[in-house]
Amino acid sequence: MLESLKKEVFDANLDLVKHGLVIFTWGNVSAIDREKGLVVIKPSGVSYDTMKAEDMVVLDLDGNIVDGKLKPSSDTATHLVLYKAFPNIGGIVHTHSTYATSWAQAGCDIPNIGTTHADYFKDEIPCTRQMTKAEIEGKYELETGNVIVERFAELNADYTPGVLVNNHGPFSWGKDAHNAVHNAVVLEQVAKMAYIAYSINPQLKMNEELIKKHFFRKHGPGAYYGQ
Amino acid sequence: MLESLKKEVFDANLDLVKHGLVIFTWGNVSAIDREKGLVVIKPSGVSYDTMKAEDMVVLDLDGNIVDGKLKPSSDTATHLVLYKAFPNIGGIVHTHSTYATSWAQAGCDIPNIGTTHADYFKDEIPCTRQMTKAEIEGKYELETGNVIVERFAELNADYTPGVLVNNHGPFSWGKDAHNAVHNAVVLEQVAKMAYIAYSINPQLKMNEELIKKHFFRKHGPGAYYGQ
Amino acid sequence: MLESLKKEVFDANLDLVKHGLVIFTWGNVSAIDREKGLVVIKPSGVSYDTMKAEDMVVLDLDGNIVDGKLKPSSDTATHLVLYKAFPNIGGIVHTHSTYATSWAQAGCDIPNIGTTHADYFKDEIPCTRQMTKAEIEGKYELETGNVIVERFAELNADYTPGVLVNNHGPFSWGKDAHNAVHNAVVLEQVAKMAYIAYSINPQLKMNEELIKKHFFRKHGPGAYYGQ
Amino acid sequence: MLESLKKEVFDANLDLVKHGLVIFTWGNVSAIDREKGLVVIKPSGVSYDTMKAEDMVVLDLDGNIVDGKLKPSSDTATHLVLYKAFPNIGGIVHTHSTYATSWAQAGCDIPNIGTTHADYFKDEIPCTRQMTKAEIEGKYELETGNVIVERFAELNADYTPGVLVNNHGPFSWGKDAHNAVHNAVVLEQVAKMAYIAYSINPQLKMNEELIKKHFFRKHGPGAYYGQ
Repeated sequence: MLESLKKEVFDANLDLVKHGLVIFTWGNVSAIDREKGLVVIKPSGVSYDTMKAEDMVVLDLDGNIVDGKLKPSSDTATHLVLYKAFPNIGGIVHTHSTYATSWAQAGCDIPNIGTTHADYFKDEIPCTRQMTKAEIEGKYELETGNVIVERFAELNADYTPGVLVNNHGPFSWGKDAHNAVHNAVVLEQVAKMAYIAYSINPQLKMNEELIKKHFFRKHGPGAYYGQ
Repeated sequence: MLESLKKEVFDANLDLVKHGLVIFTWGNVSAIDREKGLVVIKPSGVSYDTMKAEDMVVLDLDGNIVDGKLKPSSDTATHLVLYKAFPNIGGIVHTHSTYATSWAQAGCDIPNIGTTHADYFKDEIPCTRQMTKAEIEGKYELETGNVIVERFAELNADYTPGVLVNNHGPFSWGKDAHNAVHNAVVLEQVAKMAYIAYSINPQLKMNEELIKKHFFRKHGPGAYYGQ
Repeated sequence: MLESLKKEVFDANLDLVKHGLVIFTWGNVSAIDREKGLVVIKPSGVSYDTMKAEDMVVLDLDGNIVDGKLKPSSDTATHLVLYKAFPNIGGIVHTHSTYATSWAQAGCDIPNIGTTHADYFKDEIPCTRQMTKAEIEGKYELETGNVIVERFAELNADYTPGVLVNNHGPFSWGKDAHNAVHNAVVLEQVAKMAYIAYSINPQLKMNEELIKKHFFRKHGPGAYYGQ
Repeated sequence: MLESLKKEVFDANLDLVKHGLVIFTWGNVSAIDREKGLVVIKPSGVSYDTMKAEDMVVLDLDGNIVDGKLKPSSDTATHLVLYKAFPNIGGIVHTHSTYATSWAQAGCDIPNIGTTHADYFKDEIPCTRQMTKAEIEGKYELETGNVIVERFAELNADYTPGVLVNNHGPFSWGKDAHNAVHNAVVLEQVAKMAYIAYSINPQLKMNEELIKKHFFRKHGPGAYYGQ
């Protein structure tokens, strides 16, 4: 069932290792088949050395396991909330990548201060508010999704394919699993450069026009980057 | 004698290199056979390129060499103190890994400021007090163990499998040598991210509830992470 | 057409990856055949894994495509302005390398504070002024070249083979594509060390005589470095 | 002539690359045959990819080339001053390694703030004073050696096998070329950790007794580290 999507999700999980975004089994990638309404996600806590494509778990959007012998990622409920809230996304990545996680621990948005950021994210990469005791003691992973969606009510998810969960780490997404990994790599690099740039000059100034130019050079109807 | 434990300790020492935690011969790993009351530890100052599993040294808990032709690690006495004080641990690692050692040199606890930390360490990673002249000039390595145990009298060692020795570097432990190395990798990553996070926002705030949630998601009777 | 220059430019683009200066397809390298007045440049947004030497695009200095089936780099107009303004240069590199880009995002010149810098760049590595709305909304890539040339009216381009474009990232150049890549590597390393040095001592002092000595030890008629 | 010493020096130069201490041809290693009074050093500006052991240059202590077809390293005169001033050293390394060079650019000694430092360097790693115009315009490389020797008049070179040349970068030495490279690796790591430690806690305190203990645990008549 969904063999080729399982393979895609499996490969995307290994790509996280290749790009240096995860240690041990920390990250997870999922993808959705929108027609069937089924999500494929990494199993929980399985070593990347022994994991196989057929270990991927298939669930419906209510979290019922439809195929797979292993328990899905403990963050599955967060993924499902995002798939329901953002109908245009096809893949989701969660990592504890070094610099993005550090910004999340700092509890700060990553401001859009350069064209590298603007090539992928139109605005700041937002950090969610701290979760309440009730949310944490309740359906924690589902509520994690909810605080992301709450924060994005002000933004346009299509234009900002990533978020920092406060005190936790980044989620990113894209049109498919591969694209979501791509955005996770960019998010980490953008987080690293923003950290260094503010260390060099805490009073640095952004150029709003330049941001707009770079974003729309690569995205939307007027894009002219690439073949 | 204890051939399989020697192999485990040998492999765990090489894993320190693989994970980028040690330069030259700086680290050391040991493990204990609780039934026999015997500890296996790396020999002192032997190059990792030529070291073999049979070079591991076997000692009893009083430090008497029971098997092995080489001198044991100069930090052996510290390991023995920890095995006696913490009856649940099975393996110990000492490194001079970059970020954990920097926190130790700074003389600061690493506060628990994120879920990566909380997934493994329930509280701050404590830094010991500075050692006295008498302790340093006396049985130095044994006293190093004692200041660790002194600091942990306030904490629960099972819930905090690592420590920073002031002006020196980290020790970590676990249920066996392999798990102790795992915790050494996490300690280093957590030290790095805390350093960056505080640089971004010195006023950052922890979420105590979130810490508790993440720790007990992976540890104890209510854990639901993994298979 | 220009097969050997295409090969040179192709190799130089791959060298950016080898030196860790680019992620995905972010960088671009070009070279010029001054006699023929033709520029060879990387195509836009083609994956480095599948790109071939024959995919390089040949243009005249007015930007007309003379040979090649793919669209040239979206930064082509910037390269052309620089080839016209600096008649001694033979190759140009653009990257979003981590530390140089961070200085660009900070909007700061990289001061010449050490002999590593002085071995290659006689003066500071200048950062351009912020671009205006009109420049950004007009012929943006051409205007990017113009603000570089404007900044270099005060400097000697032969003595300073690199620049930071404000809020964006570095360009570097050299006598050919290979030498431009070499200077891109140096620029990144110099940016990294200046960042760390100022963190250690914000009041650090440069030694103007030492800078001059090192630059002219390697460049100009009195040079005595190398064979 | 001196084939085995040439091989040693050649291997030591390549080890600088392996340990990530040099980019391109930036570093240089030499060694001395004290009985013959001859020094073997890397040639100037030769790519490490094509360099061979027989390319090493042999000089007497007055700088006369005794064997070799290539020009010796441009830093040769500095090496010769050090061999004359420090009769116990057998090998010298110069690099522009990232963190040590950053401290040199900052113009600061690296304080001894941890046992990693104390295992190799009894005191701070000193930074020389800025050189005068007369020194720089005169026999520059020889005067570089002289300011090092001047600074070490207060210290014990055997106990502190490294130095930072102000605005420039580190030199390190040892009983032979291999040991000098070893100390260059340690110097770089110590520089990195001191940078991070002071960022975490600018008020950090050293433990003088601990420093003494660690240094003499590895050096001198009472040493008990290693086999």
